Amino acid sequence: MRKPDQQTPDAALTAPPPAWFANIAIILIEPAEPGNIGAAARAIKTMGLSQLVVVNGVDFKTDVQARRMAHGALDILDNARMVRSWDEAVADLHWLIGTTHRRRRAQFADPLTAVEAARRLLELAPRHRVGLVFGREASGLTDAELRRCNEISSVPSGAAHPSMNLAQAVMVYAYELYQQSRQAPPPRRHPLATVEEVEHLLRHMGESLAKVGFRAHQGDPETFLRSLRRVLSRA
Amino acid sequence: MRKPDQQTPDAALTAPPPAWFANIAIILIEPAEPGNIGAAARAIKTMGLSQLVVVNGVDFKTDVQARRMAHGALDILDNARMVRSWDEAVADLHWLIGTTHRRRRAQFADPLTAVEAARRLLELAPRHRVGLVFGREASGLTDAELRRCNEISSVPSGAAHPSMNLAQAVMVYAYELYQQSRQAPPPRRHPLATVEEVEHLLRHMGESLAKVGFRAHQGDPETFLRSLRRVLSRA
Repeated sequence: MRKPDQQTPDAALTAPPPAWFANIAIILIEPAEPGNIGAAARAIKTMGLSQLVVVNGVDFKTDVQARRMAHGALDILDNARMVRSWDEAVADLHWLIGTTHRRRRAQFADPLTAVEAARRLLELAPRHRVGLVFGREASGLTDAELRRCNEISSVPSGAAHPSMNLAQAVMVYAYELYQQSRQAPPPRRHPLATVEEVEHLLRHMGESLAKVGFRAHQGDPETFLRSLRRVLSRA
Repeated sequence: MRKPDQQTPDAALTAPPPAWFANIAIILIEPAEPGNIGAAARAIKTMGLSQLVVVNGVDFKTDVQARRMAHGALDILDNARMVRSWDEAVADLHWLIGTTHRRRRAQFADPLTAVEAARRLLELAPRHRVGLVFGREASGLTDAELRRCNEISSVPSGAAHPSMNLAQAVMVYAYELYQQSRQAPPPRRHPLATVEEVEHLLRHMGESLAKVGFRAHQGDPETFLRSLRRVLSRA
Protein backbone atom coordinates (compact mmCIF):
# COMPACT_ATOMS: atom_id res chain seq x y z
CA MET A 1 0.00 0.00 0.00
CA ARG A 2 1.18 3.50 -0.85
CA LYS A 3 2.00 5.98 1.84
CA PRO A 4 -0.14 9.11 1.61
CA ASP A 5 2.76 11.44 0.90
CA GLN A 6 4.60 9.33 -1.60
CA GLN A 7 4.88 11.16 -4.91
CA THR A 8 4.07 8.85 -7.76
CA PRO A 9 4.37 10.55 -11.14
CA ASP A 10 1.24 10.13 -13.17
CA ALA A 11 2.08 8.59 -16.54
CA ALA A 12 -0.68 10.57 -18.24
CA LEU A 13 0.75 13.82 -16.94
CA THR A 14 4.48 13.21 -17.35
CA ALA A 15 4.99 10.92 -20.34
CA PRO A 16 8.30 11.75 -22.03
CA PRO A 17 8.01 13.41 -25.44
CA PRO A 18 8.89 11.53 -28.63
CA ALA A 19 12.62 11.39 -29.46
CA TRP A 20 12.12 13.60 -32.51
CA PHE A 21 11.30 16.54 -30.23
CA ALA A 22 15.06 17.08 -30.66
CA ASN A 23 14.26 18.14 -34.25
CA ILE A 24 12.37 21.19 -32.99
CA ALA A 25 14.48 24.30 -32.45
CA ILE A 26 13.25 27.30 -30.47
CA ILE A 27 14.95 30.33 -32.01
CA LEU A 28 15.15 33.69 -30.24
CA ILE A 29 16.07 36.68 -32.39
CA GLU A 30 18.11 39.36 -30.60
CA PRO A 31 16.72 38.88 -27.09
CA ALA A 32 17.89 41.79 -24.94
CA GLU A 33 17.16 40.48 -21.42
CA PRO A 34 19.15 37.52 -20.12
CA GLY A 35 16.35 36.73 -17.66
CA ASN A 36 13.97 36.11 -20.56
CA ILE A 37 16.40 33.66 -22.13
CA GLY A 38 16.62 31.81 -18.83
CA ALA A 39 12.84 31.74 -18.43
CA ALA A 40 12.47 30.52 -22.01
CA ALA A 41 14.95 27.71 -21.28
CA ARG A 42 12.86 26.68 -18.28
CA ALA A 43 9.65 26.69 -20.35
CA ILE A 44 11.28 24.62 -23.07
CA LYS A 45 12.69 22.01 -20.74
CA THR A 46 9.47 21.53 -18.83
CA MET A 47 7.74 20.63 -22.07
CA GLY A 48 10.39 18.12 -23.15
CA LEU A 49 12.08 20.35 -25.73
CA SER A 50 15.83 20.80 -25.74
CA GLN A 51 17.07 22.88 -28.68
CA LEU A 52 17.51 26.59 -28.00
CA VAL A 53 19.15 28.88 -30.54
CA VAL A 54 19.88 32.53 -29.77
CA VAL A 55 20.60 34.83 -32.69
CA ASN A 56 22.68 37.90 -31.99
CA GLY A 57 21.38 38.11 -28.43
CA VAL A 58 22.72 39.44 -25.19
CA ASP A 59 25.30 37.16 -23.58
CA PHE A 60 23.47 34.77 -21.27
CA LYS A 61 25.74 31.79 -20.78
CA THR A 62 27.19 33.09 -17.55
CA ASP A 63 24.60 35.73 -16.67
CA VAL A 64 23.33 35.48 -13.09
CA GLN A 65 19.76 36.50 -13.91
CA ALA A 66 19.57 34.11 -16.88
CA ARG A 67 20.72 31.22 -14.70
CA ARG A 68 18.39 32.16 -11.89
CA MET A 69 15.38 32.26 -14.21
CA ALA A 70 16.43 29.00 -15.90
CA HIS A 71 16.18 27.25 -12.52
CA GLY A 72 16.47 23.52 -13.28
CA ALA A 73 17.10 24.12 -16.99
CA LEU A 74 20.76 25.16 -16.87
CA ASP A 75 21.60 22.34 -19.29
CA ILE A 76 19.39 23.99 -21.91
CA LEU A 77 21.28 27.26 -21.45
CA ASP A 78 24.64 25.55 -21.48
CA ASN A 79 23.83 23.66 -24.67
CA ALA A 80 22.09 26.56 -26.43
CA ARG A 81 23.59 27.62 -29.76
CA MET A 82 24.67 31.26 -29.92
CA VAL A 83 24.89 32.41 -33.52
CA ARG A 84 25.46 35.74 -35.23
CA SER A 85 22.92 35.67 -38.03
CA TRP A 86 19.53 34.41 -39.10
CA ASP A 87 21.14 32.41 -41.92
CA GLU A 88 23.39 30.61 -39.51
CA ALA A 89 20.46 29.74 -37.27
CA VAL A 90 18.18 28.35 -39.95
CA ALA A 91 20.44 26.95 -42.66
CA ASP A 92 19.82 23.28 -41.84
CA LEU A 93 16.12 23.64 -41.00
CA HIS A 94 13.32 22.49 -43.32
CA TRP A 95 10.44 24.59 -42.04
CA LEU A 96 10.18 27.84 -40.11
CA ILE A 97 7.22 29.29 -38.30
CA GLY A 98 7.62 32.89 -37.18
CA THR A 99 5.58 34.20 -34.27
CA THR A 100 4.00 37.63 -34.22
CA HIS A 101 1.42 39.45 -32.14
CA ARG A 102 0.58 41.77 -35.02
CA ARG A 103 -2.25 39.65 -36.44
CA ARG A 104 -3.24 39.60 -40.04
CA ARG A 105 -1.66 41.97 -42.51
CA ALA A 106 -2.26 42.24 -46.19
CA GLN A 107 1.12 40.92 -47.28
CA PHE A 108 0.90 37.79 -45.15
CA ALA A 109 -1.43 34.83 -45.05
CA ASP A 110 -3.58 34.57 -41.90
CA PRO A 111 -1.44 33.52 -38.95
CA LEU A 112 -1.83 29.99 -37.61
CA THR A 113 -3.07 29.72 -34.04
CA ALA A 114 -0.65 28.25 -31.49
CA VAL A 115 -2.49 24.92 -31.78
CA GLU A 116 -2.24 24.93 -35.57
CA ALA A 117 1.42 25.90 -35.47
CA ALA A 118 2.16 23.11 -32.99
CA ARG A 119 0.35 20.58 -35.15
CA ARG A 120 2.21 21.67 -38.26
CA LEU A 121 5.59 21.35 -36.56
CA LEU A 122 4.65 17.96 -35.09
CA GLU A 123 3.55 16.73 -38.47
CA LEU A 124 6.99 17.57 -39.87
CA ALA A 125 9.37 17.00 -36.96
CA PRO A 126 9.51 13.19 -37.10
CA ARG A 127 11.41 13.47 -40.40
CA HIS A 128 12.55 17.10 -40.61
CA ARG A 129 14.27 19.78 -38.61
CA VAL A 130 11.91 22.63 -37.86
CA GLY A 131 12.23 26.00 -36.16
CA LEU A 132 9.85 28.20 -34.20
CA VAL A 133 11.09 31.79 -34.26
CA PHE A 134 10.47 34.48 -31.62
CA GLY A 135 11.34 38.15 -32.07
CA ARG A 136 12.75 40.89 -29.89
CA GLU A 137 11.08 41.81 -26.58
CA ALA A 138 10.26 45.33 -27.71
CA SER A 139 9.43 44.90 -31.37
CA GLY A 140 9.08 41.22 -32.30
CA LEU A 141 10.13 40.00 -35.72
CA THR A 142 10.47 42.40 -38.62
CA ASP A 143 8.32 41.99 -41.72
CA ALA A 144 11.43 40.94 -43.62
CA GLU A 145 12.07 38.21 -41.05
CA LEU A 146 8.46 37.05 -41.11
CA ARG A 147 8.64 36.81 -44.89
CA ARG A 148 11.56 34.42 -44.55
CA CYS A 149 9.39 32.06 -42.54
CA ASN A 150 7.24 29.43 -44.25
CA GLU A 151 4.30 30.34 -42.06
CA ILE A 152 3.47 32.79 -39.30
CA SER A 153 1.56 32.23 -36.08
CA SER A 154 -0.11 34.26 -33.32
CA VAL A 155 -1.41 33.20 -29.92
CA PRO A 156 -5.18 33.76 -29.77
CA SER A 157 -5.92 36.37 -27.15
CA GLY A 158 -8.95 37.79 -25.40
CA ALA A 159 -7.44 41.26 -25.12
CA ALA A 160 -7.83 44.11 -27.57
CA HIS A 161 -4.09 44.74 -27.28
CA PRO A 162 -2.53 41.38 -26.55
CA SER A 163 0.78 41.63 -24.79
CA MET A 164 2.84 38.65 -23.68
CA ASN A 165 6.43 38.76 -22.67
CA LEU A 166 8.93 36.70 -24.63
CA ALA A 167 9.17 33.87 -22.13
CA GLN A 168 5.36 33.69 -21.78
CA ALA A 169 5.00 33.32 -25.55
CA VAL A 170 7.65 30.58 -25.57
CA MET A 171 5.78 28.91 -22.70
CA VAL A 172 2.49 28.81 -24.62
CA TYR A 173 4.02 27.34 -27.77
CA ALA A 174 6.16 24.84 -25.85
CA TYR A 175 3.06 23.81 -23.91
CA GLU A 176 1.04 23.34 -27.10
CA LEU A 177 3.84 21.36 -28.75
CA TYR A 178 3.83 18.92 -25.87
CA GLN A 179 0.06 19.03 -25.49
CA GLN A 180 -0.62 18.30 -29.17
CA SER A 181 2.10 15.63 -29.28
CA ARG A 182 -0.03 13.61 -26.91
CA GLN A 183 -2.42 13.14 -29.85
CA ALA A 184 0.29 11.87 -32.21
CA PRO A 185 -0.46 13.18 -35.72
CA PRO A 186 0.60 11.16 -38.75
CA PRO A 187 4.07 12.10 -40.01
CA ARG A 188 4.28 13.89 -43.33
CA ARG A 189 5.22 11.66 -46.27
CA HIS A 190 7.54 13.61 -48.54
CA PRO A 191 10.84 14.96 -47.29
CA LEU A 192 11.18 18.73 -47.61
CA ALA A 193 14.16 20.75 -48.76
CA THR A 194 16.11 22.72 -46.15
CA VAL A 195 16.03 26.51 -46.05
CA GLU A 196 19.54 26.55 -47.48
CA GLU A 197 18.56 24.30 -50.38
CA VAL A 198 15.51 26.41 -51.17
CA GLU A 199 17.50 29.65 -50.99
CA HIS A 200 20.13 28.19 -53.26
CA LEU A 201 17.48 27.17 -55.76
CA LEU A 202 15.86 30.61 -55.54
CA ARG A 203 19.14 32.42 -56.19
CA HIS A 204 19.80 30.16 -59.15
CA MET A 205 16.33 30.75 -60.58
CA GLY A 206 16.58 34.50 -59.99
CA GLU A 207 19.89 34.67 -61.86
CA SER A 208 18.61 32.54 -64.73
CA LEU A 209 15.50 34.66 -65.10
CA ALA A 210 17.54 37.87 -65.06
CA LYS A 211 19.83 36.47 -67.77
CA VAL A 212 16.93 35.79 -70.13
CA GLY A 213 15.61 39.29 -69.42
CA PHE A 214 12.52 38.30 -67.44
CA ARG A 215 11.08 41.23 -65.52
CA ALA A 216 8.94 39.98 -62.68
CA HIS A 217 5.90 41.40 -60.93
CA GLN A 218 5.84 45.03 -61.95
CA GLY A 219 9.59 45.24 -61.81
CA ASP A 220 10.10 44.05 -58.22
CA PRO A 221 12.24 40.93 -58.32
CA GLU A 222 12.08 40.57 -54.50
CA THR A 223 8.29 40.23 -54.56
CA PHE A 224 8.50 37.62 -57.25
CA LEU A 225 11.18 35.67 -55.40
CA ARG A 226 9.07 35.83 -52.26
CA SER A 227 6.13 34.25 -54.10
CA LEU A 228 8.44 31.63 -55.54
CA ARG A 229 9.85 30.91 -52.08
CA ARG A 230 6.35 30.31 -50.78
CA VAL A 231 5.42 28.04 -53.66
CA LEU A 232 8.65 26.08 -53.41
CA SER A 233 8.66 25.64 -49.67
CA ARG A 234 5.08 24.40 -49.70
CA ALA A 235 5.57 22.04 -52.61
CA MET B 1 -7.59 48.83 -50.45
CA ARG B 2 -5.55 48.10 -47.33
CA LYS B 3 -2.05 49.41 -46.94
CA PRO B 4 0.47 46.63 -46.42
CA ASP B 5 1.41 47.74 -42.92
CA GLN B 6 -2.04 48.40 -41.58
CA GLN B 7 -2.72 46.21 -38.57
CA THR B 8 -6.14 44.65 -38.81
CA PRO B 9 -6.99 42.47 -35.81
CA ASP B 10 -8.12 39.03 -36.86
CA ALA B 11 -11.50 38.26 -35.31
CA ALA B 12 -10.62 34.59 -34.96
CA LEU B 13 -7.50 35.46 -33.00
CA THR B 14 -8.75 38.32 -30.84
CA ALA B 15 -12.44 37.73 -30.11
CA PRO B 16 -13.30 39.15 -26.66
CA PRO B 17 -14.04 36.54 -23.99
CA PRO B 18 -17.58 36.03 -22.67
CA ALA B 19 -18.71 38.51 -20.02
CA TRP B 20 -18.77 35.78 -17.37
CA PHE B 21 -14.97 35.56 -17.52
CA ALA B 22 -15.35 38.10 -14.69
CA ASN B 23 -16.59 35.17 -12.57
CA ILE B 24 -13.19 33.50 -12.74
CA ALA B 25 -10.73 34.53 -10.04
CA ILE B 26 -7.01 33.80 -10.26
CA ILE B 27 -5.82 33.40 -6.67
CA LEU B 28 -2.15 33.56 -5.70
CA ILE B 29 -1.27 32.21 -2.26
CA GLU B 30 1.63 34.00 -0.54
CA PRO B 31 3.59 35.01 -3.64
CA ALA B 32 7.00 36.26 -2.54
CA GLU B 33 8.22 38.03 -5.68
CA PRO B 34 6.42 41.17 -6.86
CA GLY B 35 7.71 40.57 -10.40
CA ASN B 36 5.79 37.29 -10.54
CA ILE B 37 2.58 39.02 -9.55
CA GLY B 38 3.13 41.57 -12.30
CA ALA B 39 3.84 38.86 -14.88
CA ALA B 40 0.76 36.95 -13.74
CA ALA B 41 -1.33 40.11 -14.19
CA ARG B 42 -0.02 40.44 -17.74
CA ALA B 43 -0.81 36.80 -18.53
CA ILE B 44 -4.31 37.16 -17.13
CA LYS B 45 -5.13 40.31 -19.03
CA THR B 46 -3.87 39.00 -22.35
CA MET B 47 -6.32 36.11 -22.08
CA GLY B 48 -9.30 38.31 -21.22
CA LEU B 49 -9.38 37.55 -17.50
CA SER B 50 -9.55 40.34 -14.95
CA GLN B 51 -9.91 39.07 -11.38
CA LEU B 52 -6.66 38.72 -9.45
CA VAL B 53 -6.65 37.91 -5.73
CA VAL B 54 -3.43 37.85 -3.71
CA VAL B 55 -3.52 36.12 -0.33
CA ASN B 56 -0.99 37.23 2.23
CA GLY B 57 1.52 38.11 -0.46
CA VAL B 58 4.34 40.56 -0.75
CA ASP B 59 3.16 44.13 -1.34
CA PHE B 60 2.97 44.67 -5.09
CA LYS B 61 0.63 47.60 -5.63
CA THR B 62 3.42 50.15 -5.84
CA ASP B 63 6.36 47.84 -6.47
CA VAL B 64 8.53 48.89 -9.42
CA GLN B 65 9.34 45.38 -10.57
CA ALA B 66 5.69 44.27 -10.32
CA ARG B 67 4.59 47.21 -12.46
CA ARG B 68 7.39 46.69 -14.94
CA MET B 69 6.45 43.02 -15.43
CA ALA B 70 2.74 43.86 -15.64
CA HIS B 71 3.48 46.03 -18.67
CA GLY B 72 0.06 46.93 -20.13
CA ALA B 73 -1.82 45.22 -17.30
CA LEU B 74 -1.47 47.83 -14.57
CA ASP B 75 -5.25 47.97 -14.25
CA ILE B 76 -5.26 44.30 -13.20
CA LEU B 77 -2.68 45.08 -10.48
CA ASP B 78 -4.51 48.19 -9.36
CA ASN B 79 -7.82 46.34 -9.09
CA ALA B 80 -6.37 43.17 -7.55
CA ARG B 81 -7.78 42.17 -4.17
CA MET B 82 -5.21 41.87 -1.40
CA VAL B 83 -6.53 39.69 1.42
CA ARG B 84 -5.05 38.24 4.57
CA SER B 85 -6.45 34.71 4.56
CA TRP B 86 -7.60 31.83 2.40
CA ASP B 87 -11.10 32.12 3.89
CA GLU B 88 -11.37 35.74 2.92
CA ALA B 89 -10.27 34.95 -0.64
CA VAL B 90 -12.64 32.08 -1.29
CA ALA B 91 -15.72 32.76 0.86
CA ASP B 92 -17.99 33.79 -2.00
CA LEU B 93 -16.68 31.26 -4.53
CA HIS B 94 -18.58 28.14 -5.57
CA TRP B 95 -15.77 25.99 -6.91
CA LEU B 96 -12.03 25.90 -6.37
CA ILE B 97 -9.37 24.17 -8.40
CA GLY B 98 -5.94 24.04 -6.79
CA THR B 99 -2.85 23.70 -8.95
CA THR B 100 0.07 21.49 -8.05
CA HIS B 101 3.13 20.10 -9.81
CA ARG B 102 3.29 17.17 -7.41
CA ARG B 103 1.18 14.77 -9.49
CA ARG B 104 -0.93 12.03 -8.11
CA ARG B 105 -0.78 11.20 -4.45
CA ALA B 106 -2.76 8.60 -2.58
CA GLN B 107 -4.89 11.02 -0.60
CA PHE B 108 -5.99 12.95 -3.69
CA ALA B 109 -7.94 12.06 -6.79
CA ASP B 110 -5.93 12.23 -10.02
CA PRO B 111 -5.26 15.83 -10.98
CA LEU B 112 -7.12 17.29 -13.91
CA THR B 113 -4.99 18.39 -16.84
CA ALA B 114 -4.93 22.11 -17.62
CA VAL B 115 -7.44 21.49 -20.42
CA GLU B 116 -9.79 19.58 -18.13
CA ALA B 117 -9.49 22.22 -15.40
CA ALA B 118 -10.26 24.97 -17.90
CA ARG B 119 -13.28 23.11 -19.20
CA ARG B 120 -14.59 22.53 -15.69
CA LEU B 121 -14.28 26.19 -14.77
CA LEU B 122 -15.88 27.27 -18.04
CA GLU B 123 -18.77 24.89 -17.47
CA LEU B 124 -19.44 26.56 -14.11
CA ALA B 125 -18.45 30.19 -14.63
CA PRO B 126 -21.53 31.34 -16.57
CA ARG B 127 -23.58 30.90 -13.38
CA HIS B 128 -21.05 30.61 -10.55
CA ARG B 129 -17.97 32.28 -9.17
CA VAL B 130 -14.96 30.03 -9.46
CA GLY B 131 -11.33 30.23 -8.37
CA LEU B 132 -8.10 28.82 -9.72
CA VAL B 133 -5.51 28.70 -6.95
CA PHE B 134 -1.72 28.91 -7.33
CA GLY B 135 0.75 28.27 -4.51
CA ARG B 136 4.03 29.77 -3.36
CA GLU B 137 6.98 30.04 -5.76
CA ALA B 138 9.16 27.75 -3.66
CA SER B 139 6.70 25.19 -2.34
CA GLY B 140 3.34 25.46 -4.07
CA LEU B 141 0.14 24.75 -2.16
CA THR B 142 0.21 22.69 1.03
CA ASP B 143 -1.69 19.42 1.23
CA ALA B 144 -4.11 21.09 3.62
CA GLU B 145 -4.77 23.82 1.05
CA LEU B 146 -5.21 21.32 -1.77
CA ARG B 147 -7.71 19.43 0.36
CA ARG B 148 -9.77 22.58 0.63
CA CYS B 149 -10.11 22.71 -3.14
CA ASN B 150 -12.89 20.86 -4.93
CA GLU B 151 -10.43 19.51 -7.46
CA ILE B 152 -6.72 19.68 -8.19
CA SER B 153 -4.93 20.14 -11.47
CA SER B 154 -1.44 19.78 -12.94
CA VAL B 155 0.00 20.95 -16.24
CA PRO B 156 1.06 17.94 -18.31
CA SER B 157 4.80 18.04 -18.80
CA GLY B 158 7.40 16.24 -20.85
CA ALA B 159 10.06 16.54 -18.16
CA ALA B 160 10.86 14.06 -15.43
CA HIS B 161 10.97 16.95 -12.96
CA PRO B 162 8.59 19.56 -14.29
CA SER B 163 9.38 23.05 -13.15
CA MET B 164 7.45 26.13 -14.15
CA ASN B 165 7.63 29.45 -12.49
CA LEU B 166 4.49 30.92 -10.99
CA ALA B 167 3.77 33.32 -13.85
CA GLN B 168 4.38 30.60 -16.45
CA ALA B 169 1.85 28.35 -14.74
CA VAL B 170 -0.68 31.20 -14.63
CA MET B 171 0.04 31.82 -18.33
CA VAL B 172 -0.74 28.21 -19.30
CA TYR B 173 -4.03 28.09 -17.40
CA ALA B 174 -5.11 31.55 -18.57
CA TYR B 175 -4.30 30.51 -22.13
CA GLU B 176 -6.32 27.31 -21.80
CA LEU B 177 -9.27 29.15 -20.26
CA TYR B 178 -9.41 31.45 -23.26
CA GLN B 179 -8.57 28.70 -25.71
CA GLN B 180 -11.28 26.34 -24.42
CA SER B 181 -13.82 29.18 -24.19
CA ARG B 182 -13.65 29.42 -27.96
CA GLN B 183 -15.47 26.07 -27.99
CA ALA B 184 -18.30 27.24 -25.71
CA PRO B 185 -19.27 24.33 -23.42
CA PRO B 186 -22.86 24.04 -22.15
CA PRO B 187 -23.40 25.79 -18.83
CA ARG B 188 -24.07 23.62 -15.81
CA ARG B 189 -27.74 23.38 -14.79
CA HIS B 190 -27.91 23.35 -11.02
CA PRO B 191 -26.55 26.22 -8.97
CA LEU B 192 -23.85 25.21 -6.48
CA ALA B 193 -23.38 26.28 -2.89
CA THR B 194 -20.54 28.70 -2.12
CA VAL B 195 -17.48 27.56 -0.14
CA GLU B 196 -18.79 29.47 2.87
CA GLU B 197 -22.17 27.76 2.70
CA VAL B 198 -20.59 24.33 2.41
CA GLU B 199 -18.17 25.00 5.28
CA HIS B 200 -21.04 26.21 7.44
CA LEU B 201 -23.00 23.07 6.70
CA LEU B 202 -19.92 20.93 7.41
CA ARG B 203 -19.30 22.57 10.79
CA HIS B 204 -22.92 22.10 11.67
CA MET B 205 -22.88 18.44 10.70
CA GLY B 206 -19.58 17.84 12.50
CA GLU B 207 -20.95 19.30 15.72
CA SER B 208 -24.19 17.36 15.45
CA LEU B 209 -22.34 14.11 14.85
CA ALA B 210 -20.01 14.76 17.80
CA LYS B 211 -23.02 15.42 20.04
CA VAL B 212 -24.60 12.07 19.25
CA GLY B 213 -21.24 10.38 19.87
CA PHE B 214 -20.49 9.40 16.28
CA ARG B 215 -16.83 8.46 15.81
CA ALA B 216 -15.89 8.71 12.19
CA HIS B 217 -13.32 6.92 10.07
CA GLN B 218 -11.02 5.26 12.57
CA GLY B 219 -11.30 8.15 14.93
CA ASP B 220 -10.16 10.93 12.55
CA PRO B 221 -12.97 13.49 12.24
CA GLU B 222 -10.94 15.58 9.77
CA THR B 223 -10.78 12.71 7.27
CA PHE B 224 -14.49 12.17 7.56
CA LEU B 225 -15.26 15.86 7.11
CA ARG B 226 -13.00 15.91 4.09
CA SER B 227 -14.99 13.09 2.48
CA LEU B 228 -18.20 14.87 3.35
CA ARG B 229 -16.86 18.10 1.85
CA ARG B 230 -16.12 16.31 -1.36
CA VAL B 231 -19.53 14.63 -1.51
CA LEU B 232 -21.34 17.88 -0.70
CA SER B 233 -19.45 20.09 -3.09
CA ARG B 234 -19.99 17.67 -5.94
CA ALA B 235 -23.64 17.13 -5.22
